[in-house]
Amino acid sequence: MISPHRYRATVSYVGTAFHGWQVQKNVARTVQAVLSHALSSFAGSNVRVEGASRTDAGVHAEGQVIHFDLPSARPPDVVRDAVNHRLPSDVRLLRVAEAPADFHARHDAVWKEYLYRWSRAEVIDPREAPFVAPLSEGASLERMRAAAALLPGTRDFGIFAVRLAPGETTERTLRTVTVEEDGASLRALFRGDGFLRGMVRSMCGVLADAARGRVRPERAGELLATGDRRLLSPKAPAKGLTLVRVSYGE
Amino acid sequence: MISPHRYRATVSYVGTAFHGWQVQKNVARTVQAVLSHALSSFAGSNVRVEGASRTDAGVHAEGQVIHFDLPSARPPDVVRDAVNHRLPSDVRLLRVAEAPADFHARHDAVWKEYLYRWSRAEVIDPREAPFVAPLSEGASLERMRAAAALLPGTRDFGIFAVRLAPGETTERTLRTVTVEEDGASLRALFRGDGFLRGMVRSMCGVLADAARGRVRPERAGELLATGDRRLLSPKAPAKGLTLVRVSYGE
Repeated sequence: MISPHRYRATVSYVGTAFHGWQVQKNVARTVQAVLSHALSSFAGSNVRVEGASRTDAGVHAEGQVIHFDLPSARPPDVVRDAVNHRLPSDVRLLRVAEAPADFHARHDAVWKEYLYRWSRAEVIDPREAPFVAPLSEGASLERMRAAAALLPGTRDFGIFAVRLAPGETTERTLRTVTVEEDGASLRALFRGDGFLRGMVRSMCGVLADAARGRVRPERAGELLATGDRRLLSPKAPAKGLTLVRVSYGE
Repeated sequence: MISPHRYRATVSYVGTAFHGWQVQKNVARTVQAVLSHALSSFAGSNVRVEGASRTDAGVHAEGQVIHFDLPSARPPDVVRDAVNHRLPSDVRLLRVAEAPADFHARHDAVWKEYLYRWSRAEVIDPREAPFVAPLSEGASLERMRAAAALLPGTRDFGIFAVRLAPGETTERTLRTVTVEEDGASLRALFRGDGFLRGMVRSMCGVLADAARGRVRPERAGELLATGDRRLLSPKAPAKGLTLVRVSYGE
């Protein structure tokens, strides 16, 4: 049975001026809080928002998916336009649709894709700067690819995690890591069934160091095999990371 | 004779967080002030910066040209990297070159190009929002083109100017106005030998109203012919405008 009161939406935001996704005490500007505020203003009552991914401070999204309930049924396009009207310009509902009453943006996600962007340009244009991490000109696509090829699988990714919840398991399935270049830019696309907190940025730290030649590409495999945190590279900056897609197996 | 102490540079900036180009009393953050500050820090003495165009608050640049003098000759790439290191991330020197001692970024400019961007998308992505003005979905390329075709020429553009300096002449040569569309976006590229203050945004106000069907395309010609300010459309927002190129006839 379809309930007309639950909605799902695809959300795009520039993470630069947000303290991440999740509502926190004493931190006013999170994406979840801003969305909840705009939806509550539209609905005339408190609306809770759940997101597929709890993106960190400074991380962007082009395809975050959320769900929320409204006290009365409204046409999805009306919801989209009225809520966008109430949102600051760095976050937008791209699409809104009715959803089954039990649809859950996080629990129902089958896989997610995160894209990490680096620039090897001598000068990074100010338009691009908020969305890329700098990398030296000599950084190698082939070395990054060789390191990336060692990451996918269903295995313990705990070495790449920060702040695990008590009792949280660290096995995840990383389906693919695809590394491409386009002029001065290098990009790595991660598709996985689930990601630990900090996992993509930690893996990207290793990929960047491999591309630069600071470590051999084999380091990515050694980290997974040994779990030795002394071998870790510094985590890649948040601004290079974007949540690009969440799939529900449709 | 080439002096090694004068330099020219091409500058890119996101205008959103600047109070325009020009240094003003009691307004801290202008592009000119930020550049002068970084160059002075690098040179160890006060460095004055002159720009080809005094862009308004909120206007962007991809190809602003500046000149400045350094007390001693330094390799251009060293200047570029050291100054970029001292600049905030919303402004960058893209290229630096030595210049003749009498090179003047504003006086020597032969023509300039400004690009105005609109979006007819139902939802404007947050990444694009700082650089486009919204336009209704039905806005017509053909109507905007018809209006744009009436603008070029060597003539009195005073109707489109704001805050003329005392005794300032209002004749200018507008060489071409090229209107293109790309999916939901509409763009108008203005090439001219000189522009009055506010002129491009005022012309864009008419182009937008013509595209929307609020006025006939012929309105652009009537404004120039009659100089009747009551016929003017509201000035287009600053954020849609970018200084893209300055030519020195090379």
